[in-house]
Amino acid sequence: MATVLTVWGSPSATSRTGVVARHVAARLAADGHDVSTLAVRDLPAQALLHADFADPHLRAALARVAEADALVIASPVYKAAYSGVLKTFLDVLPQFALRGKEILPVLTGGTPAHVLALDYALRPVLTSLGADHVAQGWFVHERFVSVEGGIEARNGIDAQGGPDAQDGITAQVGITAAQVGIKALGGIEAEGIAPLDELADAFSARLRRLAAVA
Amino acid sequence: MATVLTVWGSPSATSRTGVVARHVAARLAADGHDVSTLAVRDLPAQALLHADFADPHLRAALARVAEADALVIASPVYKAAYSGVLKTFLDVLPQFALRGKEILPVLTGGTPAHVLALDYALRPVLTSLGADHVAQGWFVHERFVSVEGGIEARNGIDAQGGPDAQDGITAQVGITAAQVGIKALGGIEAEGIAPLDELADAFSARLRRLAAVA
Amino acid sequence: MATVLTVWGSPSATSRTGVVARHVAARLAADGHDVSTLAVRDLPAQALLHADFADPHLRAALARVAEADALVIASPVYKAAYSGVLKTFLDVLPQFALRGKEILPVLTGGTPAHVLALDYALRPVLTSLGADHVAQGWFVHERFVSVEGGIEARNGIDAQGGPDAQDGITAQVGITAAQVGIKALGGIEAEGIAPLDELADAFSARLRRLAAVA
Amino acid sequence: MATVLTVWGSPSATSRTGVVARHVAARLAADGHDVSTLAVRDLPAQALLHADFADPHLRAALARVAEADALVIASPVYKAAYSGVLKTFLDVLPQFALRGKEILPVLTGGTPAHVLALDYALRPVLTSLGADHVAQGWFVHERFVSVEGGIEARNGIDAQGGPDAQDGITAQVGITAAQVGIKALGGIEAEGIAPLDELADAFSARLRRLAAVA
Repeated sequence: MATVLTVWGSPSATSRTGVVARHVAARLAADGHDVSTLAVRDLPAQALLHADFADPHLRAALARVAEADALVIASPVYKAAYSGVLKTFLDVLPQFALRGKEILPVLTGGTPAHVLALDYALRPVLTSLGADHVAQGWFVHERFVSVEGGIEARNGIDAQGGPDAQDGITAQVGITAAQVGIKALGGIEAEGIAPLDELADAFSARLRRLAAVA
Repeated sequence: MATVLTVWGSPSATSRTGVVARHVAARLAADGHDVSTLAVRDLPAQALLHADFADPHLRAALARVAEADALVIASPVYKAAYSGVLKTFLDVLPQFALRGKEILPVLTGGTPAHVLALDYALRPVLTSLGADHVAQGWFVHERFVSVEGGIEARNGIDAQGGPDAQDGITAQVGITAAQVGIKALGGIEAEGIAPLDELADAFSARLRRLAAVA
Repeated sequence: MATVLTVWGSPSATSRTGVVARHVAARLAADGHDVSTLAVRDLPAQALLHADFADPHLRAALARVAEADALVIASPVYKAAYSGVLKTFLDVLPQFALRGKEILPVLTGGTPAHVLALDYALRPVLTSLGADHVAQGWFVHERFVSVEGGIEARNGIDAQGGPDAQDGITAQVGITAAQVGIKALGGIEAEGIAPLDELADAFSARLRRLAAVA
Repeated sequence: MATVLTVWGSPSATSRTGVVARHVAARLAADGHDVSTLAVRDLPAQALLHADFADPHLRAALARVAEADALVIASPVYKAAYSGVLKTFLDVLPQFALRGKEILPVLTGGTPAHVLALDYALRPVLTSLGADHVAQGWFVHERFVSVEGGIEARNGIDAQGGPDAQDGITAQVGITAAQVGIKALGGIEAEGIAPLDELADAFSARLRRLAAVA
């Protein structure tokens, strides 16, 4: 059994990226790992943007990374790369924060044209953090993920790149991210998400082997 | 004369990146352009991280991008790429926000090993935003930039990648970013910054030519 | 009028990449430019792989690059990047061989998942060669390009990445590349290639403007 | 004990890249692995550039890749990326040729400014080939590698990027690559190459563990 932290970085509370991150987390938990999830957007925004290491919530988040044996790192694709939200958190990690850890990278996006952002943009950053092993990752097309509830189109953020582009629950509806996430899990099409499930299972098996050796 | 917006994204108010950004801005202004500067960290943090397009400050910032003929985009290198702070702002831009605009990319960093982050990480993002022309950029090594005043080392953020790593003025000293910036300009070594100056001058000349044709 | 050199690098003489390269070349020529085409595979293979600068054909090819005002650089996507064939030629160019030149990059590929290879793999290489301006490029999906004549499937080369993967005219058929290219042009679907045509036209207009200023 | 294939791709027979590749190969062999080396430049040039899968030498090389448990992949940095010579060989590999294999990537270069070519250019290609694990790699600065014998400067190839730039033994001297390689090993400075040795040892230990589990 390994301690796994799933970190996802999207500006939206009802993000498809969050749905996918929780889906992978649930799958790893079902296989016996101790899994928790960290949504970067839930951290104090100013502390994050100003790299205020005195902030207790930020410190707690950094401690969770330090304690994890493995991390799932998930982001929407915006502007042909990972989100700035995710990167603000990776930026405050110590230089070799991922040394000795196993990483599973996951991207979500609205167009297959952005698949390579995983290996050309996200993976180099994770490698620079000293990760021992960044597994083969997966890009989930948004059409395989649904987010139910009073969704309202929001102008602006990256119609090109992001599944989270049209997220944005109206305040009146008030559906929480957790509820949306649970419902949305039913919306993951088997065929579209199957390769990710296979990767997650292989990642889980790998963590078990490593735990057995140690 | 062109309207130029200099956007820089560092978590620190007294960032070497900010010094460099203001240096380039001053040089372009001296050549007759209408130049203004936008520090991403001065935007409302929560609005930025949550992509809240209703926020008036965020809207105003987006309007400034839309009105610019050209942009200087500056970032420290953190974790072998541009900063998350800069990316959070690029993420909220419309999909082809840089179409028809000329871009000068600049990075600052603590090790020459990160030079290629400009062309492998930052440039693809700027290109995806539809920029007509992303000029040859420049990576400024931190040893060519000094920030005066009661600097106090700050643990944490990327000793590997960032000149801004050791930034962090103590509250007691209370030197404003503007004052530090002005003083710091005197600290830029001629030889180290000369190539950037040449690029800025070429960029300026190009903007003049384009203005003459239009 | 500008002097334009179209360089394409595919291992196959009947490559879809070659078809696309000749298509762009013809379009630029029709607009009044002096255009010629260089197929890297036609250079002496050993001289190229061993970087034998004494080889007269290699020297002649380098001279053509030096004399060009602008270059169209075309490659299939193999293994999520430009072809090795193209890169062997770029490798023997002087360090800043593209300084003062305008570049139009073009990729062909069998899956939209490889679109970003243009901006994350090819563009950084062209930028490192000192190009003044690398225009917005285009990725042409192989389904918009047809190569007529007795095509015979060939095992091996990158079913993942390359439109040229199934190229390989049988010797018996003996159709020359030129003939195939001409026929194939008729096979380019208007809708699929239109964005490339627009880019080529914009590139041509830009070359005219630059010639007018000089 | 694992079967390891070291593949290096440089246009020069007396390449510093070759020296480094043989150094790593010797270290892995000394630790008990079955190691052999493949210099891409020794393959039939035309077969390689034209992807002629009927060529027996090319087929034999592909078979060696298929049989290996692990590969060391080495290249000089040319034009801010891996060499075209190396890529021509990677291009003829089957789509997922590295699936189930462990990879250690190594670059050599003349300037630290090119360090990131490893993670932004070479690693994505190796990942696209399906490698289970691409270990943390190393960039060896040319000043840590010496090649003895009548070296004669050669004009042209990438003064910017390549340690192999000034390689090129005169025919009269006639020193073979093997002899140069052996001599050159003595020229590797302990401090400069130590991190690579550590990575190679960790790679070796990993291969042993995997062999024990299997």
